[in-house]
Amino acid sequence: MEKAKPIGVFDSGIGGLTVVRQIASTLPNESIVYFGDTARVPYGSKSNDTVIEYALQDAHFLIEKNVKAIVVACNTVSAIALNVLKEKFTVPIIGMITPGSQLALKHSRTKRIGVIGTRATISNHAYLNELKKNNSEVEVFEKACPLFVPLAEEGWIDHEATKLIAEEYLKELRDLNIDTLVLGCTHYPILAKIIQEVIGSEVKLIDSGVASAEVVRQEINRIGLETNSHALGYQDFYVSDIPTTFKKVAELFLGQSILNVKKIDLEELQKKQ
Amino acid sequence: MEKAKPIGVFDSGIGGLTVVRQIASTLPNESIVYFGDTARVPYGSKSNDTVIEYALQDAHFLIEKNVKAIVVACNTVSAIALNVLKEKFTVPIIGMITPGSQLALKHSRTKRIGVIGTRATISNHAYLNELKKNNSEVEVFEKACPLFVPLAEEGWIDHEATKLIAEEYLKELRDLNIDTLVLGCTHYPILAKIIQEVIGSEVKLIDSGVASAEVVRQEINRIGLETNSHALGYQDFYVSDIPTTFKKVAELFLGQSILNVKKIDLEELQKKQ
Repeated sequence: MEKAKPIGVFDSGIGGLTVVRQIASTLPNESIVYFGDTARVPYGSKSNDTVIEYALQDAHFLIEKNVKAIVVACNTVSAIALNVLKEKFTVPIIGMITPGSQLALKHSRTKRIGVIGTRATISNHAYLNELKKNNSEVEVFEKACPLFVPLAEEGWIDHEATKLIAEEYLKELRDLNIDTLVLGCTHYPILAKIIQEVIGSEVKLIDSGVASAEVVRQEINRIGLETNSHALGYQDFYVSDIPTTFKKVAELFLGQSILNVKKIDLEELQKKQ
Repeated sequence: MEKAKPIGVFDSGIGGLTVVRQIASTLPNESIVYFGDTARVPYGSKSNDTVIEYALQDAHFLIEKNVKAIVVACNTVSAIALNVLKEKFTVPIIGMITPGSQLALKHSRTKRIGVIGTRATISNHAYLNELKKNNSEVEVFEKACPLFVPLAEEGWIDHEATKLIAEEYLKELRDLNIDTLVLGCTHYPILAKIIQEVIGSEVKLIDSGVASAEVVRQEINRIGLETNSHALGYQDFYVSDIPTTFKKVAELFLGQSILNVKKIDLEELQKKQ
């Protein structure tokens, strides 16, 4: 029975659905319970204490769903709250920053690595610190791209305006001879095609969701809890609010129709400690 | 002493600063106390109950600053919470929707009026209902422009990408022969130049901030509380969080340097009922 338990994934909103997509692709027989805190998104503009408080509530919600591991599918929370979550809960906790950084270092030959993300992720240098911790020789170039999140949520993945905006954001990085670019926000894989086009085909894009899905595989293997099932796992989605465009945007991020979305009560969530 | 009291203005974030700018321009001798709930922005994705609860707290904060009138410088809150605020407090409460609609009706000769705003404002049809209530003959055409807020906050007021995005959003309205366009979001005056360029110079843009400043003048005149001072009024700014780019963005919105920004304690705010 333990092996049949689902993997828990949470995010401040819907960006984490790109991570669900990667986990489902890497581990199709595993079940997934997702929680998106859409009522309190974005976390990036909130204080560290608030982010930690919310993250504990989110993780607690998943623990009550009896998950065997928790993926923090949000770069902001990974940067700020991962250690607190690891101290609090006994299941494996997998973030975005360490898997993404390690995959980037594995792929980079020149060790000149770019990192793009939200203003919050870039200003706390989470990827830069993690990359340098693992390889003191690496040179890291960071750039915040605040408009990429609303563009992804608007679904403008092929729009000329998105290309112009990407050109504006990425022009400095393009001149810095990086060979690897970390997509340090779970929304950015939605814009990967345009980002690749603008940064150049010789630069390897790193999707932290792909990296973390592989770490999930290793972790549930380590604790002996890979599912025995040969059927496709189920996926349950919970959110704290359902914005009008939720279904359309969520399906773009997940890459398939989204079923079983349940709205949970925020006040109940806030009682969890 | 009563006449020297400041005018209170609040918003879910910084958009309301464009309204402060208009009030200060219309009533330069009046003092202003501004509160931006930057820790809990955006309100647009929250439930009506939550918006009302937050609006009561925000207004309560201003009442404690001894204001003689309150301007709800946020279209979402104006649409949802204005009546509750009017019942709760005895000072004049001025929103965005009624002043903006009336100014639009005054300017429109053909009575074909466009309204642009956030997804929340457009989907609750606040302007459409108010316009039709005042003139049953009017034809109203609405369009949500979700990317305008992040573009304004990014300060891309002259960027080619902004123009392309405006063209995409406004193309339907351009073909509908409107003669007046309501900027139904306090962020949008920042992009007025590009919006005017794209929609055409024959269309009159309505800034609800300009309209509400005039209503503020009438209201404080009605209650006999216009200031006697001939000096410039003071301006105090309070926020519930100070994002990294706050100063730069706030100055763009306000049109001048911003001094006296104080961060208030969110937990204290939440106790106000």
